[in-house]
Amino acid sequence: MIVTSDISELRAYRWQDRSVAWGLVPTMGALHLGHISLIEQAKKENDRVAVSIFVNPIQFNNPKDLETYPVTLEEDLKILKKQGVDLVWTPTIEDIYPENYQTYVQVEEFSNQLEGRSRPGHFKGVATVVAILFNAFQPNRAYFGQKDAQQLLLIKQMVRDLKFYLEIISCATVRENDGLAISSRNKNLSKQGRKQAVCLYQALAAANEAISNGNIKAESIKTQMKSIIDEYHLAKIDYMSIANPTNLKEVEIINGQVLISLAVFVEDVRLIDNMTMEV
Amino acid sequence: MIVTSDISELRAYRWQDRSVAWGLVPTMGALHLGHISLIEQAKKENDRVAVSIFVNPIQFNNPKDLETYPVTLEEDLKILKKQGVDLVWTPTIEDIYPENYQTYVQVEEFSNQLEGRSRPGHFKGVATVVAILFNAFQPNRAYFGQKDAQQLLLIKQMVRDLKFYLEIISCATVRENDGLAISSRNKNLSKQGRKQAVCLYQALAAANEAISNGNIKAESIKTQMKSIIDEYHLAKIDYMSIANPTNLKEVEIINGQVLISLAVFVEDVRLIDNMTMEV
Repeated sequence: MIVTSDISELRAYRWQDRSVAWGLVPTMGALHLGHISLIEQAKKENDRVAVSIFVNPIQFNNPKDLETYPVTLEEDLKILKKQGVDLVWTPTIEDIYPENYQTYVQVEEFSNQLEGRSRPGHFKGVATVVAILFNAFQPNRAYFGQKDAQQLLLIKQMVRDLKFYLEIISCATVRENDGLAISSRNKNLSKQGRKQAVCLYQALAAANEAISNGNIKAESIKTQMKSIIDEYHLAKIDYMSIANPTNLKEVEIINGQVLISLAVFVEDVRLIDNMTMEV
Repeated sequence: MIVTSDISELRAYRWQDRSVAWGLVPTMGALHLGHISLIEQAKKENDRVAVSIFVNPIQFNNPKDLETYPVTLEEDLKILKKQGVDLVWTPTIEDIYPENYQTYVQVEEFSNQLEGRSRPGHFKGVATVVAILFNAFQPNRAYFGQKDAQQLLLIKQMVRDLKFYLEIISCATVRENDGLAISSRNKNLSKQGRKQAVCLYQALAAANEAISNGNIKAESIKTQMKSIIDEYHLAKIDYMSIANPTNLKEVEIINGQVLISLAVFVEDVRLIDNMTMEV
């Protein structure tokens, strides 16, 4: 397994054999089973798999979130080697944002909804770093988790709009036994916080059940979700959304597919989760 | 010579033989000797040359400028065939900006200076369309004229920042016998306007002479430039600038290289020109 921070070296490996198809799994490290599912999917669909590890400072609207974001490089590299990854790119902040850096990509509509509204500047940072990674490596396919549903939509929109020549593949959210969506930020939860973090999944499961039972009123479903989360004293809702899954506009009456998503602070840790449901 | 508006067809030709190096000359059509010099340079440095023709609506801040921008496709294709161009891409507006388009690229500092200040939104439009062209075609080299000096700087900055995997090549401004920089917009000048349009070159030549004679005070040089332009009653100065050629910041005392640039309305036609000079 090649590990390099150097973009010239990265490109030398990437273009050694032009007939080889490469999958890229962009990560911020602190690897978990969610990332591993992306890598497994990438291995199935490509001749070679590259993983980038870069904690992108400009997508953190909250400096404390950046400060506490887990960094576990040594452990990550062991996992990647075991997974049979071919190439790992570990650029420094200066490699990605050299002095006098000043170019940004914005997916304008998606950037102002849900996560974008709660985290100003977040998606500008995401779109920009993903554009950089795509241009630097030019993968044939890139892999992202459904857990970050809005991020996935935004990246697909950017790829369509800016005509990046690659395919975006999404993989299902991986969950713990109790339903908690696996996330690097789960590591920052206390033991009690970890237990209460199940509230996101429970709220989504309740929404799913309500819809199965014929409830199609978004407000009523949100009220049920809220009452579940309110049972957990460490949890504080940031937002709940029942939206059209193609444009993220809120719906009042569920008809067809909807994306139900939510962000909840558990202790100081901001967690997100979502499910797509259909009437 | 292949002419296509279809991006799949474009990519099929571009990637037919992966070992072949392609140069791209992005244009808005209305081809003239300036474009031909770019094509000649591209032919020297690449195995194949592609030219795109697309009048990019989002870089026109002034709707009247867009309306009157000359379109001469039939003539353009004759010229390109004669020049031995391999591939011409003529996308429609819908090909570049399909329904629900929402992704934009901004080179933030360069976008607010000189041309950017006079033409709000212009450089956001330029950076965005150039990113689309680069991703769609993925040329090995792309060619731009020095006449649009700020555009050239901005594109180089974008390529550096977003790590586009290609080389930007710039070519010298081509001039008419009287010194007027060749531009598609010159076609919109009346006979009298065409005569008076020489004022931009004359102002730059006077600046050059003043500097050669030891004048290093920017304000004094601008006063000389202004007095020349004021002799032409159809000309109205938009801006004059004597700036650091790497960051476009205005200088007071010339020391080393400077970019002297100006924009002048001659009748209703906005013309720009520039020269790099050195003390």
